[in-house]
Amino acid sequence: MPLAEFDLIREYFSHATASRDDVILGVGDDCALLQPPAGMEMAITTDTLVEGVHFSPGADPEALGHKSLAVNLSDLAAMGAQPSWVTLALTMPASEPEWLKGFSRGFLALAQKHHVALIGGDTTSGPLSITVTAHGFVDSHKALRRSGANVGDQIYVTGQLGDAGLALLVQKGVYVPENGLPQLQQRLDRPQPRLAAGQAMVGVASAVIDISDGLVSDLGHICKRSGVGARVYLEKIPISKEVTKYLQTGGHWGTVIAAGDDYELCITVPPAQESTLETVAAGLDCDLTLVGEVVAGSEVTCIQSDGSVVTGVTSGYQHFT
Amino acid sequence: MPLAEFDLIREYFSHATASRDDVILGVGDDCALLQPPAGMEMAITTDTLVEGVHFSPGADPEALGHKSLAVNLSDLAAMGAQPSWVTLALTMPASEPEWLKGFSRGFLALAQKHHVALIGGDTTSGPLSITVTAHGFVDSHKALRRSGANVGDQIYVTGQLGDAGLALLVQKGVYVPENGLPQLQQRLDRPQPRLAAGQAMVGVASAVIDISDGLVSDLGHICKRSGVGARVYLEKIPISKEVTKYLQTGGHWGTVIAAGDDYELCITVPPAQESTLETVAAGLDCDLTLVGEVVAGSEVTCIQSDGSVVTGVTSGYQHFT
Repeated sequence: MPLAEFDLIREYFSHATASRDDVILGVGDDCALLQPPAGMEMAITTDTLVEGVHFSPGADPEALGHKSLAVNLSDLAAMGAQPSWVTLALTMPASEPEWLKGFSRGFLALAQKHHVALIGGDTTSGPLSITVTAHGFVDSHKALRRSGANVGDQIYVTGQLGDAGLALLVQKGVYVPENGLPQLQQRLDRPQPRLAAGQAMVGVASAVIDISDGLVSDLGHICKRSGVGARVYLEKIPISKEVTKYLQTGGHWGTVIAAGDDYELCITVPPAQESTLETVAAGLDCDLTLVGEVVAGSEVTCIQSDGSVVTGVTSGYQHFT
Repeated sequence: MPLAEFDLIREYFSHATASRDDVILGVGDDCALLQPPAGMEMAITTDTLVEGVHFSPGADPEALGHKSLAVNLSDLAAMGAQPSWVTLALTMPASEPEWLKGFSRGFLALAQKHHVALIGGDTTSGPLSITVTAHGFVDSHKALRRSGANVGDQIYVTGQLGDAGLALLVQKGVYVPENGLPQLQQRLDRPQPRLAAGQAMVGVASAVIDISDGLVSDLGHICKRSGVGARVYLEKIPISKEVTKYLQTGGHWGTVIAAGDDYELCITVPPAQESTLETVAAGLDCDLTLVGEVVAGSEVTCIQSDGSVVTGVTSGYQHFT
């Protein structure tokens, strides 16, 4: 792609990004220059979405713009960090103004919503792929790690699980919903990073992770890093009407707990923080639901309403990840 | 690619990265946690290399590992920043242990050399592509921007120009060197980011850029941002024996000044700093050569030894970039 076209691409991102005092120099030099806040730790994460792997050819560019940023902000949320700056590395086969218009609209709208500045990036010719690196800040020694869970902690999740997984089944033609498809699709395409919830958990939660690969897998990461096990009660997991209907008509729980792409948070809370949690939860913009507890061991055990243990869920649904 | 293979990939990068006190938490959680130094500005840059665009299929993985980091460190060098942390987003069609071994060796060796910590990343399945985001620090208000050049400043370049461009011609079968191919190839594959030179220019230079797209194009960026023009004397440009031979046998100057991939620095220095510059230059690990001066206007003019002006160089060689 000639350079001139890349200049064109830059145009789409040069406006409407959040203005922040800590951005000394944005796009246009060899590097961006930033002023980190004093006395805080910086959180950095990077995630790539590849066409044909993370999304289908022909996917809505506006949704892609949203999601490529959202999955990164979700990682910041899981540390309790406030997002500040992002870079965008965009590789695309050709310069398509309509596609770029949609993509930048989705990307910049979410950036504005969370007061995030796009400080730099790279645009290259090649197979469609999007890499975002996101930066944020959290008070020193306060970041929410995966490694802090202890036996006796309660396990919570934000929002509802399974809508994104069910939307994938619908996309693949495996399941036909009675109605509610737009909502499911929205939950798959436009995950809302739980930034406020994550930040509210600072000083309250013992461990947090975002649910990108499914509750069993991601809670498993907390267990591994914390040296504990977990029990999850399926009947307690918050699900939508559509997912309820799906399960009632023979659907598999794996779609809820192992299909991923929910971008909700999984949170462990020590008993001593339960009363604080109640206060905090009341002020959140999303539900917080108790789904299980941290136990001794190293496994995530899922228990059905009749008391029986669900097995084989993780491996059976790994093709979703 | 199953998750297990990605864990395998992470293995290759989990060792031998520089250990730094300011890395509070590295790879393995939702985000890395870092402690920015007080009283400094942060410099951030990101660059992508795509197979078939920036390198040929079958390119030496160790050289690729080196180059994907080097081009980013070169941007930090151009701001006068000290590198600190990098993230790596690696997209590859399949997990190939031998390729990964080579790539990580090249990447980590350069990271170690410049005391840079690999703090996180993402490994995804897809067409081969490498995105690195590099972070560094520079004293507040001291960063070397493109916008500071003034009429009367002298223009310098580090090292030698044209070897990488000539190596590309050799690769394409357009030119057959008598000897010296390994050196040329080395200059194309293993650019050495001029970090020490860049840092030494803090407080001395008025503007700096790294030469990734060729001297004419990159000096043109300084001119545009500074609102000035530039005169460059071709006979003063430092070139290797091999490039001298190439030019003597009918080669085109565009290979030297418009072919790119040199990753040297182009530096403008105010007259008042000339004596300081001499002292600084004596302590550098690379040559610093006066090649022209900043003038009124908006164009980069290249002048041959007979006083005539070279025209059409930039556009003629844009296919190299």
